Amino acid sequence: MSEMHAIRRNRLREQCSAAGNAAALVSRPANVRYLAGAAPHGAVLLLGSTEDLLVCALPPEDRPADGRPDEALRVHTLSRTGGDPAVAAARLAEAQAADSLAVEEHHLTVTRHRAIHSVAPRVRVADLGSAVEQLRVVKDEEEISCLRIGAEIADQALGELLESILVGRTERHLALELERRLVDHGADGPAFATSVATGPNAGRRAHRPTDRRVEEGDFLSVCLGATYRGYRCEIGRTFVIGTTPADWQIELYDLVFAAQRAGRESLVPGAAYRDVDRAARQVLDSGGHTEGLPPLTGHGVGLEIDEDPQLGPAAMGKLDACVPVTVEPGVHLPGRGGVRIDDTLVVRPEADGGPELLTITTKELLAL
Amino acid sequence: MSEMHAIRRNRLREQCSAAGNAAALVSRPANVRYLAGAAPHGAVLLLGSTEDLLVCALPPEDRPADGRPDEALRVHTLSRTGGDPAVAAARLAEAQAADSLAVEEHHLTVTRHRAIHSVAPRVRVADLGSAVEQLRVVKDEEEISCLRIGAEIADQALGELLESILVGRTERHLALELERRLVDHGADGPAFATSVATGPNAGRRAHRPTDRRVEEGDFLSVCLGATYRGYRCEIGRTFVIGTTPADWQIELYDLVFAAQRAGRESLVPGAAYRDVDRAARQVLDSGGHTEGLPPLTGHGVGLEIDEDPQLGPAAMGKLDACVPVTVEPGVHLPGRGGVRIDDTLVVRPEADGGPELLTITTKELLAL
Repeated sequence: MSEMHAIRRNRLREQCSAAGNAAALVSRPANVRYLAGAAPHGAVLLLGSTEDLLVCALPPEDRPADGRPDEALRVHTLSRTGGDPAVAAARLAEAQAADSLAVEEHHLTVTRHRAIHSVAPRVRVADLGSAVEQLRVVKDEEEISCLRIGAEIADQALGELLESILVGRTERHLALELERRLVDHGADGPAFATSVATGPNAGRRAHRPTDRRVEEGDFLSVCLGATYRGYRCEIGRTFVIGTTPADWQIELYDLVFAAQRAGRESLVPGAAYRDVDRAARQVLDSGGHTEGLPPLTGHGVGLEIDEDPQLGPAAMGKLDACVPVTVEPGVHLPGRGGVRIDDTLVVRPEADGGPELLTITTKELLAL
Repeated sequence: MSEMHAIRRNRLREQCSAAGNAAALVSRPANVRYLAGAAPHGAVLLLGSTEDLLVCALPPEDRPADGRPDEALRVHTLSRTGGDPAVAAARLAEAQAADSLAVEEHHLTVTRHRAIHSVAPRVRVADLGSAVEQLRVVKDEEEISCLRIGAEIADQALGELLESILVGRTERHLALELERRLVDHGADGPAFATSVATGPNAGRRAHRPTDRRVEEGDFLSVCLGATYRGYRCEIGRTFVIGTTPADWQIELYDLVFAAQRAGRESLVPGAAYRDVDRAARQVLDSGGHTEGLPPLTGHGVGLEIDEDPQLGPAAMGKLDACVPVTVEPGVHLPGRGGVRIDDTLVVRPEADGGPELLTITTKELLAL
């Protein structure tokens, strides 16, 4: 593992020096974890001109879920009097005689940026941009294996919920129960706030659970994910409560299912991001649903639940192999509810069997 | 309620114009909620030169836990194509012919700040500093009543846990159960990640629950809080598992209890922040514990769980009446565990009965 983190840091170092920067300061927590193996609260990584350092406010805790700092990295802990690790790292960069330091301007606040300037006046402060986010897009097999385990855990939690009695329970309680089951099955925790939506709420993206109770005849849509060794996956399914779905429910479900399948089938290396979005979106359009569609059909997942690529109409770029993404089209009809179907898949070449589906819970329309 | 938000905005407007700024852009979510009644995801508040606007990426959801936007405020929702509400607000400020705009430099990233500059080149961008955070320090009785209800909920959740069997259960499961109970009793959700710490982990500040199981003879320390209508409180207690605490446990508990009481008793209007800290800290020092002490004895609570004032050795400032704070000294002995005792109280004049204790669970050393 250590070796892998060193390889990642060296890749970033090459990019930095090609851009004329002697050192880089990485502050976004998922980026720190990617390059250092762990991201203790507030810690930053200094990719130094003479030495790399993990600069922490407090000593890292030894918790498997948090990862372990790469042993090849020296950990620099600030004294109890505290201070901002980013500012301390800038001071250390100056002490290493770095003439320029690239920082994550999309993560640092103006105040912290100013403090970095003022403690290291001899260092030219440049922008690292989203260089680390771009490195993170294509995953190695170890990363994918964490996502696969997380997806298994989410499938298990969801499967158990479906076997229990649902009518009369609130969205909030169902969400809390799912989160408990994720932890029971070995997740570090939920990958994001579990969404449970019933009746008129069903099918809304990122709906936050309310006290509404599940009723006969409802659509019930659920979206959850597990974090496993820092990696976050996502699954979403929609069910009908009661014995026989209404005609409009079957029709809407079939449409969203067809859109989701079209999106999944377009996941091939080399496909443009926007073409994946279009594949799903045009099925929904053909069903007459042009309003109330989500802005994106899917997105990358990894150390964050929403990372690059963004599969939307305006996205620029093409899929590579070994990029895990969600495909999650949905339709919400105000006042009536709707359907969302969401999988996490890994882009694979056709010769390797095409996209690898990580979330394997059935997508048949189940009546519960 | 609406009137109150308008009063708060006018207070801020006066400060801004005294500093020579025609308009202000408030982006920190708790500050937006304080001034606008609600803070939909990503929303910012423009305190304009001709009109105040709540600028949102998506239409606000109607959830009681999120608050409701003040009806006197116009809500400006960006189109589905998205964009950054802060950037849109800067454009609106320029359209209002504001010559200067104060922004929250401690919250905006460098990238967003740059985007604001570039869309509103005729506007001088200044720093609002922590003006809104300072307005938030002293609470009105409506705010205190939300904290009081939150504290009652936390007391109930904790009380129920104490009646259940604890030995053999893991820290993670106990934490999840406490969070479920908070929601059962009407909380919007936990105020922060619930901490349950057993044996050698007990007494560690903000310990994140592990898979360690509760054992006979352990110290068990628990820290939790409820969010109620956006307001967050905190309670922490330490217990002993088994029938008879060991002598070292009783001794350590009595010491931390005495320190916590000294801190509580020093909460009077006009007391210096650092004197509250010193009152508690010198009791711990007198017990020979100068290592492993937390950097702060307590902090303000409100729309955020950790806000001003900071009750620490280097803090500048004096307590006012109607400021809610925590008093939470603790000692952790590496390898053995420790004790933390944490209450939320409101500073009140002696004539009104002195500090009002919101979290009323007993602080006797209970053997469970």
